[in-house]
Amino acid sequence: MLSHLFHVSLAVLFCVASVEACADEKLSEGHANGKTRTNVVLILIDDLGWNDLGCYGSKYYRTPNIDALAKGGVRFTDGYAACNVCSPTRAAILSGKYPARLLLTQWLPSGRWDATKYRMREARYLSNLPLEEITVAEAMREAGYRTAFMGKWHLGTETYYYPEHQGFDLNVAGRDYGAPGSYFYPFEGKWRIPTTGKVLEKKSPLNGKAGDYLVDRLAEEAEKFIVSSKDEPFFLMLSHYAVHSPLQGKPDKVKEYEKTPTKKQQGKPHYAAMVESVDDSVGRVMRTLQRLKLERNTLVIFTSDNGGFAKATDNSPLRANKGSNYEGGIRVPVLMQWPGHIEPGSICREPVISNDFYPTILEATGIEAKPFQHLDGMSLMPLLSGDGEFARDALYWHYPHYNQHPQSFPSGVIRDGDWKLIENFETGDLQLYNLAKDLGENQNVAQQNPRLTANLLAKLKRWRNSVNADPMLKNPQYQIKKKTPK
Amino acid sequence: MLSHLFHVSLAVLFCVASVEACADEKLSEGHANGKTRTNVVLILIDDLGWNDLGCYGSKYYRTPNIDALAKGGVRFTDGYAACNVCSPTRAAILSGKYPARLLLTQWLPSGRWDATKYRMREARYLSNLPLEEITVAEAMREAGYRTAFMGKWHLGTETYYYPEHQGFDLNVAGRDYGAPGSYFYPFEGKWRIPTTGKVLEKKSPLNGKAGDYLVDRLAEEAEKFIVSSKDEPFFLMLSHYAVHSPLQGKPDKVKEYEKTPTKKQQGKPHYAAMVESVDDSVGRVMRTLQRLKLERNTLVIFTSDNGGFAKATDNSPLRANKGSNYEGGIRVPVLMQWPGHIEPGSICREPVISNDFYPTILEATGIEAKPFQHLDGMSLMPLLSGDGEFARDALYWHYPHYNQHPQSFPSGVIRDGDWKLIENFETGDLQLYNLAKDLGENQNVAQQNPRLTANLLAKLKRWRNSVNADPMLKNPQYQIKKKTPK
Repeated sequence: MLSHLFHVSLAVLFCVASVEACADEKLSEGHANGKTRTNVVLILIDDLGWNDLGCYGSKYYRTPNIDALAKGGVRFTDGYAACNVCSPTRAAILSGKYPARLLLTQWLPSGRWDATKYRMREARYLSNLPLEEITVAEAMREAGYRTAFMGKWHLGTETYYYPEHQGFDLNVAGRDYGAPGSYFYPFEGKWRIPTTGKVLEKKSPLNGKAGDYLVDRLAEEAEKFIVSSKDEPFFLMLSHYAVHSPLQGKPDKVKEYEKTPTKKQQGKPHYAAMVESVDDSVGRVMRTLQRLKLERNTLVIFTSDNGGFAKATDNSPLRANKGSNYEGGIRVPVLMQWPGHIEPGSICREPVISNDFYPTILEATGIEAKPFQHLDGMSLMPLLSGDGEFARDALYWHYPHYNQHPQSFPSGVIRDGDWKLIENFETGDLQLYNLAKDLGENQNVAQQNPRLTANLLAKLKRWRNSVNADPMLKNPQYQIKKKTPK
Repeated sequence: MLSHLFHVSLAVLFCVASVEACADEKLSEGHANGKTRTNVVLILIDDLGWNDLGCYGSKYYRTPNIDALAKGGVRFTDGYAACNVCSPTRAAILSGKYPARLLLTQWLPSGRWDATKYRMREARYLSNLPLEEITVAEAMREAGYRTAFMGKWHLGTETYYYPEHQGFDLNVAGRDYGAPGSYFYPFEGKWRIPTTGKVLEKKSPLNGKAGDYLVDRLAEEAEKFIVSSKDEPFFLMLSHYAVHSPLQGKPDKVKEYEKTPTKKQQGKPHYAAMVESVDDSVGRVMRTLQRLKLERNTLVIFTSDNGGFAKATDNSPLRANKGSNYEGGIRVPVLMQWPGHIEPGSICREPVISNDFYPTILEATGIEAKPFQHLDGMSLMPLLSGDGEFARDALYWHYPHYNQHPQSFPSGVIRDGDWKLIENFETGDLQLYNLAKDLGENQNVAQQNPRLTANLLAKLKRWRNSVNADPMLKNPQYQIKKKTPK
């Protein structure tokens, strides 16, 4: 029904520069044999905000290497993480499915929040990415790729859910927890799980020597892997622990950012230093590809797992931050570079989401699609090449949980064209925004648009049914508590 | 609709000996204050078959102490485990909920079975008992009870899901795995997870000295706890690792059972020796209660987490074994003793299930019910005391998984009165049995009773909806594989 209200978006309408010139070259290279096979480097940053990069408009953070990626390829203005917190987005990238379909809708291991404080009971959710999922890494390994994972994993509490059991030949530093004990060697530390009060002793995820900085160490390992794989097709997932807390930048960089007057700082100097270190690592990876003459033969994808952390950066003009379903929590940088296939400096305004990378990578590398697996993703190749239609109906989010980030509440979201509807699971309240006119989500126009609101809500509910999303239920303990004191 | 077809069962109709004489005594003792509060000892055996006890008819296994429990209290003929494998039943005992409602429907950590071999995709399931659940131990601890857990836990892969985080003051030997490495000290050993191929190094769950036998060590710890708690109300959950594999009996006992000719053995001599050791442990616990004059003030519950293991014992006249939804997989011994409250030597034919223990314990101890928590259990007090009605409609099972036990297939079950309907999730086939006439489930009478079959199926489906059971879906990888070879 609602599809009549909105124009189905076509790649050619949205992407500023389409790349018809590349079609022949792509064909001549071929996809499926020997040394001409396309490598893939997927760089995933943790908690990097949408406008924390020069190429997305930041005047504060210095990110020349990442900006160069944007110049050399395509920048998506409306890139989205599949969730406003980390683990579900990671699961979506690896599986090609919405977190709701996976039943992996909350960060891990989140334990329980106060049992009596909240009006609703959180939905049931898994605490690991099931081994049944054929991850993008498994698909590529099966097709003959060398696969490596480096950095933050955060998708399972037991060792047999680690990257080496999910398709990666090599796992460097990927384990159960979502942040290192420290960014300085030996990267250890203690952490109190906020929901259980238990203190977790974080062991060193990686070797090194005194003074080593984790971002640099991962870059070094990434370079090593690329060098050792130069004669074979490879898939590298460089998943930085940065720029997640603990906020610990390299001292010399921190000093530089402290020079900016506090009022003019977009984020904390330590955070800024971490962003710059991540940028350095991207420079190292790209220079290694160039030096080995692999750059033209490598699809590089750069993204983040959720919006910027409230205590670290400023996400304006977007509303809110990590942990919230407003744009500040879910809109993230998405850049792709693939010389000869993607027009340099192009900008794409089509909404895309974490689930899309999997089928995109398969199509780019000439590996057969796995439609039974990446059910909720769409190959972005038509957008990248300007060739073919890209006709998605809408994007969806399902966050039936609580967290302690500002402006967060349990909610479901549909983005359909320029419209975004947010359903508050506690109150049933509906918020409708027109993102084209109101990127900051300041004007809730649900009351002015009752029919559209009802239609979008119905569509959101149909989607929830279709992916078998687990619902929130009323918390009976909350009700009981309320009775006693009065 | 269907409730018209069957008589709702009333306690007084089913329990052979009702215990009206006890009503006054019960009242005079009171339930809620000081030293007269009722203690609870819940003894849970792993994989003990329905007729593996003298009091259930075995002529082979020697279980005088457990038989004495039956003589001193009530024996349920139609006691059921909430699942045909262990972890879900354990979750049901602790939470008072059906495994399907918990979304904890498979043993842990079961990993994945062959992705292409099976027609259906297993339902999504949790790999730990969520901390949000207010377990029976938490409820009792809140009410001032000392709580202790000993033995097999098997409800979570991380330490913060262990008994000490689920309401138990004391945890002896309870951890993530479901069987010890060895039953002899230091109880260590290696185990290959059948689904992942990973080898798990099982550390010693308990101290001891050379030659110590795990069943005895747990009995010793149970005695210690009872002695130290004699002046306070206590809840002890003695959850034996036995009689689960590895089948390792004490040598002297094994020798005795080996004397029986093989053809006359109901099970393996090692298994029989383990059953007898469990019986010894029950004797030790009961003698400790007697010595401390706590017996009259203690409700003892004895049960098993699923039917007998095919390679260990013979479950006939029941069909099949552990892992199957036939009676041999889910019908288990259930005994309760509480002098002065339960008529000695009584037999109860009312179907009861693991979920029922939680509300039963709360009522017996005078602790307020938690209807928001033990949603799927019913207090058995009317059956125990002969006082009041016990009107349950039906019992249900949901096993949307595969395992390697004989006669197992993914299935749902409803038992309504004497009728039992099994729905095969792969094929949709329906099996209907009248358990009163056909305990061995030999005659599928579904075709002769189409209306009853349809009604029971509809009722089963309504129940699945009501508990938000996760469904099996077709396995698209299975279909794809089938196409290729032909």
